Amino acid sequence: MFRNNYDGDTVTFSPTGRLFQVEYALEAIKQGSVTVGLRSKNHAVLVALKRNADELSSYQKKIIKCDTHMGLSLAGLAPDARVLSNYLRQQCNYSQLVYNRKLSVEKAGHLLSDKAQRNTQSYGGRPYGVGLLIIGYDNSGAHLLEFQPSGNTLELYGTAIGARSQGSKTYLERVLDEFVDVQTSEELIKFGVEALRQSLKDETLTTDNLSIAIVGKDLPFTLYDGENVSSFL
Amino acid sequence: MFRNNYDGDTVTFSPTGRLFQVEYALEAIKQGSVTVGLRSKNHAVLVALKRNADELSSYQKKIIKCDTHMGLSLAGLAPDARVLSNYLRQQCNYSQLVYNRKLSVEKAGHLLSDKAQRNTQSYGGRPYGVGLLIIGYDNSGAHLLEFQPSGNTLELYGTAIGARSQGSKTYLERVLDEFVDVQTSEELIKFGVEALRQSLKDETLTTDNLSIAIVGKDLPFTLYDGENVSSFL
Amino acid sequence: MFRNNYDGDTVTFSPTGRLFQVEYALEAIKQGSVTVGLRSKNHAVLVALKRNADELSSYQKKIIKCDTHMGLSLAGLAPDARVLSNYLRQQCNYSQLVYNRKLSVEKAGHLLSDKAQRNTQSYGGRPYGVGLLIIGYDNSGAHLLEFQPSGNTLELYGTAIGARSQGSKTYLERVLDEFVDVQTSEELIKFGVEALRQSLKDETLTTDNLSIAIVGKDLPFTLYDGENVSSFL
Amino acid sequence: MFRNNYDGDTVTFSPTGRLFQVEYALEAIKQGSVTVGLRSKNHAVLVALKRNADELSSYQKKIIKCDTHMGLSLAGLAPDARVLSNYLRQQCNYSQLVYNRKLSVEKAGHLLSDKAQRNTQSYGGRPYGVGLLIIGYDNSGAHLLEFQPSGNTLELYGTAIGARSQGSKTYLERVLDEFVDVQTSEELIKFGVEALRQSLKDETLTTDNLSIAIVGKDLPFTLYDGENVSSFL
Amino acid sequence: MFRNNYDGDTVTFSPTGRLFQVEYALEAIKQGSVTVGLRSKNHAVLVALKRNADELSSYQKKIIKCDTHMGLSLAGLAPDARVLSNYLRQQCNYSQLVYNRKLSVEKAGHLLSDKAQRNTQSYGGRPYGVGLLIIGYDNSGAHLLEFQPSGNTLELYGTAIGARSQGSKTYLERVLDEFVDVQTSEELIKFGVEALRQSLKDETLTTDNLSIAIVGKDLPFTLYDGENVSSFL
Amino acid sequence: MFRNNYDGDTVTFSPTGRLFQVEYALEAIKQGSVTVGLRSKNHAVLVALKRNADELSSYQKKIIKCDTHMGLSLAGLAPDARVLSNYLRQQCNYSQLVYNRKLSVEKAGHLLSDKAQRNTQSYGGRPYGVGLLIIGYDNSGAHLLEFQPSGNTLELYGTAIGARSQGSKTYLERVLDEFVDVQTSEELIKFGVEALRQSLKDETLTTDNLSIAIVGKDLPFTLYDGENVSSFL
Amino acid sequence: MFRNNYDGDTVTFSPTGRLFQVEYALEAIKQGSVTVGLRSKNHAVLVALKRNADELSSYQKKIIKCDTHMGLSLAGLAPDARVLSNYLRQQCNYSQLVYNRKLSVEKAGHLLSDKAQRNTQSYGGRPYGVGLLIIGYDNSGAHLLEFQPSGNTLELYGTAIGARSQGSKTYLERVLDEFVDVQTSEELIKFGVEALRQSLKDETLTTDNLSIAIVGKDLPFTLYDGENVSSFL
Repeated sequence: MFRNNYDGDTVTFSPTGRLFQVEYALEAIKQGSVTVGLRSKNHAVLVALKRNADELSSYQKKIIKCDTHMGLSLAGLAPDARVLSNYLRQQCNYSQLVYNRKLSVEKAGHLLSDKAQRNTQSYGGRPYGVGLLIIGYDNSGAHLLEFQPSGNTLELYGTAIGARSQGSKTYLERVLDEFVDVQTSEELIKFGVEALRQSLKDETLTTDNLSIAIVGKDLPFTLYDGENVSSFL
Repeated sequence: MFRNNYDGDTVTFSPTGRLFQVEYALEAIKQGSVTVGLRSKNHAVLVALKRNADELSSYQKKIIKCDTHMGLSLAGLAPDARVLSNYLRQQCNYSQLVYNRKLSVEKAGHLLSDKAQRNTQSYGGRPYGVGLLIIGYDNSGAHLLEFQPSGNTLELYGTAIGARSQGSKTYLERVLDEFVDVQTSEELIKFGVEALRQSLKDETLTTDNLSIAIVGKDLPFTLYDGENVSSFL
Repeated sequence: MFRNNYDGDTVTFSPTGRLFQVEYALEAIKQGSVTVGLRSKNHAVLVALKRNADELSSYQKKIIKCDTHMGLSLAGLAPDARVLSNYLRQQCNYSQLVYNRKLSVEKAGHLLSDKAQRNTQSYGGRPYGVGLLIIGYDNSGAHLLEFQPSGNTLELYGTAIGARSQGSKTYLERVLDEFVDVQTSEELIKFGVEALRQSLKDETLTTDNLSIAIVGKDLPFTLYDGENVSSFL
Repeated sequence: MFRNNYDGDTVTFSPTGRLFQVEYALEAIKQGSVTVGLRSKNHAVLVALKRNADELSSYQKKIIKCDTHMGLSLAGLAPDARVLSNYLRQQCNYSQLVYNRKLSVEKAGHLLSDKAQRNTQSYGGRPYGVGLLIIGYDNSGAHLLEFQPSGNTLELYGTAIGARSQGSKTYLERVLDEFVDVQTSEELIKFGVEALRQSLKDETLTTDNLSIAIVGKDLPFTLYDGENVSSFL
Repeated sequence: MFRNNYDGDTVTFSPTGRLFQVEYALEAIKQGSVTVGLRSKNHAVLVALKRNADELSSYQKKIIKCDTHMGLSLAGLAPDARVLSNYLRQQCNYSQLVYNRKLSVEKAGHLLSDKAQRNTQSYGGRPYGVGLLIIGYDNSGAHLLEFQPSGNTLELYGTAIGARSQGSKTYLERVLDEFVDVQTSEELIKFGVEALRQSLKDETLTTDNLSIAIVGKDLPFTLYDGENVSSFL
Repeated sequence: MFRNNYDGDTVTFSPTGRLFQVEYALEAIKQGSVTVGLRSKNHAVLVALKRNADELSSYQKKIIKCDTHMGLSLAGLAPDARVLSNYLRQQCNYSQLVYNRKLSVEKAGHLLSDKAQRNTQSYGGRPYGVGLLIIGYDNSGAHLLEFQPSGNTLELYGTAIGARSQGSKTYLERVLDEFVDVQTSEELIKFGVEALRQSLKDETLTTDNLSIAIVGKDLPFTLYDGENVSSFL
Repeated sequence: MFRNNYDGDTVTFSPTGRLFQVEYALEAIKQGSVTVGLRSKNHAVLVALKRNADELSSYQKKIIKCDTHMGLSLAGLAPDARVLSNYLRQQCNYSQLVYNRKLSVEKAGHLLSDKAQRNTQSYGGRPYGVGLLIIGYDNSGAHLLEFQPSGNTLELYGTAIGARSQGSKTYLERVLDEFVDVQTSEELIKFGVEALRQSLKDETLTTDNLSIAIVGKDLPFTLYDGENVSSFL
């Protein structure tokens, strides 16, 4: 029995205080296709590379709308993302129906965080094997959140998750000062598409595999697929 | 203890972020006899190779009708397929009774996906050991879905699952442009039967072992067995 | 730890997609004494070899009546067969009382299949260690089903399960064309008894150890034991 | 880890289809003192060897009355026998109170069988470590049943369970033709006592260690202990 | 893994039909200080050696009164004895309140037996690590029972449990004929105290460490401690 | 696998009848700072050495008041002590409210004993890792109890638990005859403080680290900390 | 199996009485960025170093307000801290609503302690992987508590938790006499910021990464971030 015995379940700390199952869940994210998120003062943008298994299959959905002011993109296990996005959509509905107000992006992050944390502290389940980028626009402006399997949600100016996402992040860091101040959503999208390109290997961006979403001031969450993205290629 | 200890249950990630039990369930699918699905704009078709254990037994059902507009074929553990098809049939009934409308194919896929995902995140069960091809015709046209044990459901133009299904898929990829544009269901079935032939080894297609189903515009889900398939041989 | 660790419970797939515990349950069937089932258009017959532990014990029941139109024979763990036959008898009653109609043989197979499938997908139990041959006569004619621990139920013309049953099956395959067309139940029984003989080793069929059941058109399920089987020896 | 890993719980089949825990429970029976059961047409008899731990302790009860027409003797774990005999006594009461009829011996066997079977198919318990011989007289005459931990219950002419019981069984087989036709209960008891003697090692039967029970036509279940057995020594 | 794997829980039989955990619980009894029980026709007596951890602590209670006609002494884990004696006391109360009669000693043994048996057949607990000697006087006279962790309860003339109890038992066997016929409780106590002496090692019986209880005809359960035992030293 | 496999949970006896987890819990007590308890006829006293982690932290509470007539000191896991002292406080309240009388010290010990015993017989928990000294004054005078993780509670004249407590115990044994007869609480406290000194290593008793509690006839439970203990240094 | 088998879950004591999982949780705290707490008579202060994952992300919140008189800072797993701070906030609300008074700091510590203790004594969870410093001002003045995963809560004059926190603690010990007597909150904050500096490695304190909170007499809990901390740099 020479194996490391701290990595078999979510409720066991390693002697160095790590929860290995939570870290392994991060690896599931790295196997998903890359998605980029970024925001300026008034807008937030998601850009994602869609994949298809082969010629015969449609490209899989990478961006999911949650409400008129919020949506998310994913990298990792798609069925896990469905669970989380369905949950978020329900919470958006609930907030509208019960409180008559939009769910704030910060609150959305808290809700996802609490749901994910439970899976890291109770025996019998596993952490969610998916990362999410959540964009939204609420009273406090445009937001971009990164959700992690640990239950951590980070507020960000820009980031990328998924396969080879480091390329996108490096690019975004370099142009941070430029994109945070852009005025139009089109400009912001262009930065996002360029960032996505930094993580490509053999793929070329096409109207088939590129997915874009934008939300912002006076601009409800809008998803661009297919021919609608051609102007950004 | 030199064994890999990440593959014993569904709630443990491997250090590379994989859920091995979900992958092993895929192997159960590969042991089932092949089934092919494909769709044109107005029609969707399932073609399946039925097996019998020996001379004395009937050929086992490979295609199951769920509603007048939807049905599915299976490869893998038949009892698991029964659980899922029963569930889908109930959901079709429920949609008709409560909302007075047909369950959309997309929604059908979501329902199966959520049901299967739960089996990959809770201790004490196992993933479903079966793959399904679901065809249907609803407001948004003809559809073909592939359901996988992970909870993934893919929208496809054509595909095949089961033993030696790669042969069928290669054929479908080659003739993709031809079959997506056919006008009649008979033409589409012919492509399907030919695809199925590419995955046969020693078998010959007969009225005994061939099963065909079609659904489409103004064409309720119809299953052809026995003599009814003779015209397609 | 050089053992194969995929065969310890029912909820773990092996890397090749097999559920070993379900396969091991089949071995329990092979230790039971042989039973044969066969059907013509209008009749279905069960023939079974009864065993006694020693001179002092009665021969154990191998055929169980479920309703006036249905019954079954078993090979494997008798207490497990009791659970399943009791369940089937209740379902027959229920169908009669609530719907005022006989439970169809196909539906009987589905019910057993679903009950057995649950034992192959939930932690904490084991598959049923018994095989069943179910005969019945309903609106769609005479039927013979084979129930397996996996939850599979096969429709058959004839088959045999239990110790050395391959001999019976080989015989039945050879005379398939003959027995499917016989007109009388007596002829069908004779084929069945002869088939049973092919699986005997040192035993001789006697009025003590032979059990026969017949069901058919205008012929309720009837069980022959003891002197009543002497005419078929 | 060179151990056989199929024998640790009741819900795991060995590769040969055996449930080892059920077989091990049989060994617990072999450690109990011997008890013999036999029946003629109109009577059924239990004969048992009582043990005491040492000079200071009373002899332990081996035969338990369940109703005026039924009783049992045991070999194996006495506390397990208590659970089962209490259960049977309750069922006898229930039958009398609710249906106003005596529980049939066959039904008694079925009830014990079902109760024991559950312990062989659910995780978290163990099979009963006791064997029972049940005698009774009902509408269908005198009966002798043997209950086994697997849930099997056998109808018998005569048998013995417990330490060195093979001696008794061999004797009973030899005199089977004689005792099945005896007319009086006294004669039947004599055969039983003689059978018991065949399994003794160093013990001598005395009024202290011999226990006898009889039930039959017009003869309610009667237990003889102490001086009452002296006439059979 | 060369260890014996049948001794880790109460629900696993060893290949020889033993429940090791139940046997290990007996060892806990052997670590308790010795207690002796004996009875004549009209009286039953408990004699026990009390221990204290050191000079500073009181001697621990070894004899517990359950009702005016019943009490017990213990050897083994005191907290387990508390659970069982509390249970017995409640049952005595219940019998008095509901049926307006004293709980019979036999029934008391059955109740303890059933309670203990459950701990030997369900996963997740352990057998009680304590042995009890129960004395009582009811309609059928004076009784002495020995309760064991297996759920066995033996009716006895005399016995001893705890450390080095074999010495006491040997003595009691030798004088069995004498003490069963004594007329007064004082005489019976003297036999008990002498028996206890046979199991002492370095201890001397004093008014501090000797505890005596008596129950009998027209004599309610009475406990003697301290100076009250001086006349028996 | 050369490890001892009987020490991993509370529900497994070792072959020698020991519950290792209960014994290991005793070790947690030995890591706590020392506390001393002693009693005369009319008074009971607790003396405890408080610790602080470093210069910056307050000294941790070692003595807890439960009611006006009862309190306790602890050694071991403080959070476990909180659970037990809260429980005791609730029981004191309950006794006052429901029965209008003070909870007797003996009853308090029984309640703690039962609560702790459950943790030693059910799977899924652990024994309490704390020892308690409970003092109180009730109708039967002054009392000192020692509570142990096994559920044992001992009545004592004096004792000490925690790190190096043997020194205190040896002292108390030597002066037992003196302190049991003192008339005033001040004298008893002095014996207690002196006992505590016997277990010190490098520490010196100060108004910061010494905690004293007293209860007795006409003297409600009183806790002395800080300057209030200066007269006893 | 040469591994230490006492460190895999929270409900197993090691032979030395330690709960390793609780100790490993402390390691998770050491990986968090440092936070300092200190108090004078009338004020309590938290100073924390905020971290961001990279240039693109916001700095993560380290200090959380619970009520107008209470707040906390954290080091370790942020999602675990959310669970605990949400709980504390609810308890503060509850106290206000139900009792119309502020939750005392001492009671707050007790509540957290009890919640955390449960996670160290029940199978199926893990200890919280976070340390908290709680400051508050109530009737008994200014308070600083340190919460640990074991459920221990310490009252302190000053302390630091997180990466390299020893440097801060050493500084605080040296200046203890100075800061406990300061009159103004500004002075106290300065000591806190200086303490934090002692634990920095390559970082420099900036308006971005420094977070300060203060509470005190007539001073509700106030959090300073960004430009508001510039005067303390």
